Amino acid sequence: MPDLSRRRLLTGAGIAVGAGAAAVAGAGLVRQAQPAPVQADAPGGSIPFHGAHQAGIATPVQDRLHFAAFDLSTDSREKVVAMLKAWTAAAVRLTAAQEVGGGATGAELAPPDDTGEAIGLPASRLTLTVGFGPSFFDKLKLPRPDRLKELPHFPADKLDPARSGGDLCVQACADDPQVAVHAVRNLVRIGFGTASVRWSQLGFGKTSSTTPDAQTPRNLMGFKDGTNNIAGTDHKQLDEHVWVGDEGPEWMRGGSYLVARRIRMHIETWDRTSLKEQEDIFGRTKREGAPYGGTREHDPVVLDRMPIDSHVRLANPAALGGATILRRGYSFTDGSDGLGRLDAGLFFLAYQRDPEKGFIPIQRALAAKDTLNEYIQHVGSGVFACPGGVRPGSFWGQGLLD
Amino acid sequence: MPDLSRRRLLTGAGIAVGAGAAAVAGAGLVRQAQPAPVQADAPGGSIPFHGAHQAGIATPVQDRLHFAAFDLSTDSREKVVAMLKAWTAAAVRLTAAQEVGGGATGAELAPPDDTGEAIGLPASRLTLTVGFGPSFFDKLKLPRPDRLKELPHFPADKLDPARSGGDLCVQACADDPQVAVHAVRNLVRIGFGTASVRWSQLGFGKTSSTTPDAQTPRNLMGFKDGTNNIAGTDHKQLDEHVWVGDEGPEWMRGGSYLVARRIRMHIETWDRTSLKEQEDIFGRTKREGAPYGGTREHDPVVLDRMPIDSHVRLANPAALGGATILRRGYSFTDGSDGLGRLDAGLFFLAYQRDPEKGFIPIQRALAAKDTLNEYIQHVGSGVFACPGGVRPGSFWGQGLLD
Ligand code: HEM
Ligand code: HEM
Repeated sequence: MPDLSRRRLLTGAGIAVGAGAAAVAGAGLVRQAQPAPVQADAPGGSIPFHGAHQAGIATPVQDRLHFAAFDLSTDSREKVVAMLKAWTAAAVRLTAAQEVGGGATGAELAPPDDTGEAIGLPASRLTLTVGFGPSFFDKLKLPRPDRLKELPHFPADKLDPARSGGDLCVQACADDPQVAVHAVRNLVRIGFGTASVRWSQLGFGKTSSTTPDAQTPRNLMGFKDGTNNIAGTDHKQLDEHVWVGDEGPEWMRGGSYLVARRIRMHIETWDRTSLKEQEDIFGRTKREGAPYGGTREHDPVVLDRMPIDSHVRLANPAALGGATILRRGYSFTDGSDGLGRLDAGLFFLAYQRDPEKGFIPIQRALAAKDTLNEYIQHVGSGVFACPGGVRPGSFWGQGLLD
Repeated sequence: MPDLSRRRLLTGAGIAVGAGAAAVAGAGLVRQAQPAPVQADAPGGSIPFHGAHQAGIATPVQDRLHFAAFDLSTDSREKVVAMLKAWTAAAVRLTAAQEVGGGATGAELAPPDDTGEAIGLPASRLTLTVGFGPSFFDKLKLPRPDRLKELPHFPADKLDPARSGGDLCVQACADDPQVAVHAVRNLVRIGFGTASVRWSQLGFGKTSSTTPDAQTPRNLMGFKDGTNNIAGTDHKQLDEHVWVGDEGPEWMRGGSYLVARRIRMHIETWDRTSLKEQEDIFGRTKREGAPYGGTREHDPVVLDRMPIDSHVRLANPAALGGATILRRGYSFTDGSDGLGRLDAGLFFLAYQRDPEKGFIPIQRALAAKDTLNEYIQHVGSGVFACPGGVRPGSFWGQGLLD
């Protein structure tokens, strides 16, 4: 017979849920006894869940992503509050590399509280970030923030409803994909009966960075991506362009608006394009990432030196009255499309204080003129209000729902 | 103007292709100047491409997978030989962390020889393994090895033709998914006009190990997977069960037959199953991975102590007259299925000397009785003859095609 005392640890413990629960829950529940302090270059460590802002926005970008959009299967606020409380309790544990413990007492005759596939794995800098879509407010008859509107239609958009929208979303980022997938899956499980997955997306490689000192990652077009991004340590820029301030609503203070776009790349066509054309499209060199007119990656972008309809020239804040976003996207490859082509591209994620001063004007300019458009197509879309940070004892969306 | 001399490095160099080419190709082409020697626990290092066996079978299992099945768009042997030569030359470079160089001379007016997204990344233990499906032989009018037959139908199979079959396959494994995806994509590009992708699969986490000393990874059911697998250092077992010997054909000597199965897991149902039921299904404990009747993971499996139709009891060689395979599968999560469920499971890969003495009898037993069947469904399938190792100066499939 298997060793029952050890098995009980898997299910019978999670009585106290929340920060510090590990101390009372028994060693068997702790994936990593002493989570390391946050370190941008320590992929095994943990990033604190609580704070003034949700983790996963300005914190260092991890290597992998699992993003899930959910639809509510209820219009009961109480049920949604209960789910968000349980999600928060689970998130506190998951981000500290502890197994989920929801208070089951049936031991081996009950389903385990945690699905188990992350046992033995470190926190891997897991962050979980939650956002509410416009339909969330409509379904629960809650006042929608003025800034949370459905995105306008952009020319050449070819959005698949099955990969767009969603009442709420969870962005799980970690250095180990098993840890990110495990986290989403356990939230799915906890949400059963209240919310179900509408669509989800795995991202295998980060395409941007919030730590400008580290090496800039390359996207699937082979270019360094995220060079001119907001640094996670640049509080002036973050306060100006990313964090919602006292313009309200109150529960959004310290929060941010997220735009997600699934952008398919026609990589087979791209791969048959000359190096010169590829570089002209961005206005940057491929190997170095230097802007035309400069020689090194971080040389300043001088608009006049850029090809007229190049991506960087069009997207640069100087061309757009200062419109600025924090990019946090990931590359994806989801098998092939039935026509012998890889279904690959960029799962674009951008955070901003106000979509009307961030994504929308930038995308308007790009959709109208960007020479890159010949090689890409926007096929999925979502917009979400991500509330401010969670304080210990509080839960995701408390200020909105309580 | 961008720095032309640096840009030329990206395209103008790959004149000499093959082992040692890095020395003459200029520093700009080398992703990592000094590839580290093979080390099972050094994820950045490189694994030699050449040898008596193809790498990627008995070599240590890397963290990530990109698997692609291709269909030929020609019946010309010459064209296929030319592609396999170019693939081999590219594979030599890719597995040594060098950019692909195919001999382009047009510099910036030509498409780059390498798509570029892996520039700056280490080899990440990349292995590329090639196999030929039954239809490859039919299309090219080549004699098919006796042991390479289409797999029989198994009860409850629900195979999607769009995720099954293929004239040939490439298994790319690496510790960094960007490196695996980059490799497949460059082979796709080189194959343009000769072969195109029929289906492809990303695997985000290994579910088995050929290095029994390392920690056994967990699959998406939360169980350690690969405990009773053939070790990559166990030459006796490999020679007996994995490598083709002098039974022929000659070009298969040192090669192996690969069975690939995309197995969907009904994880939402699984997650609502009690711990006891989960453990009874495998005949092993969840946390420790110990077989019933034992207390530690590597304790021997005693068939009589196992629940009668448990997975391990049915699959154990002692129950099957010695049928044995080397497992090398990966977990996948491909978004959701439109019904609010994650499309997740196990991309099962098994190598064997003869499918009739490996996968087929095991799967017959499992398909008939395994209590696990309630939670899984086989939805994709392929079988491929993977030739013996490639010697320097030779190319994939040379013994078959030359
Ligand atoms: C597949 C689609 C896209 C690709 C491949 C791509 C790629 C790139 C690359 C290579 C750069 C230059 C390096 C850098 O500063 O990060 C860049 C810059 C930028 N991109 Fe994109 N991008 C895509 C879509 C978008 C979209 C949809 C937006 C927003 C609507 C956007 C906004 C920006 C911005 C704001 C910059 C920085 C410009 C600057 O300040 O210099 N990009 N992008
Ligand atoms: C989603 C499907 C599957 C899951 C979740 C699964 C999981 C497992 C687990 C947890 C073990 C015990 C640990 C170990 O020794 O590796 C195991 C053993 C094994 N499985 Fe599977 N497996 C699956 C499908 C298959 C298939 C399709 C085959 C072959 C037809 C297979 C063949 C084996 C073999 C040969 C063993 C070792 C048995 C022994 O020697 O003790 N499995 N599997």
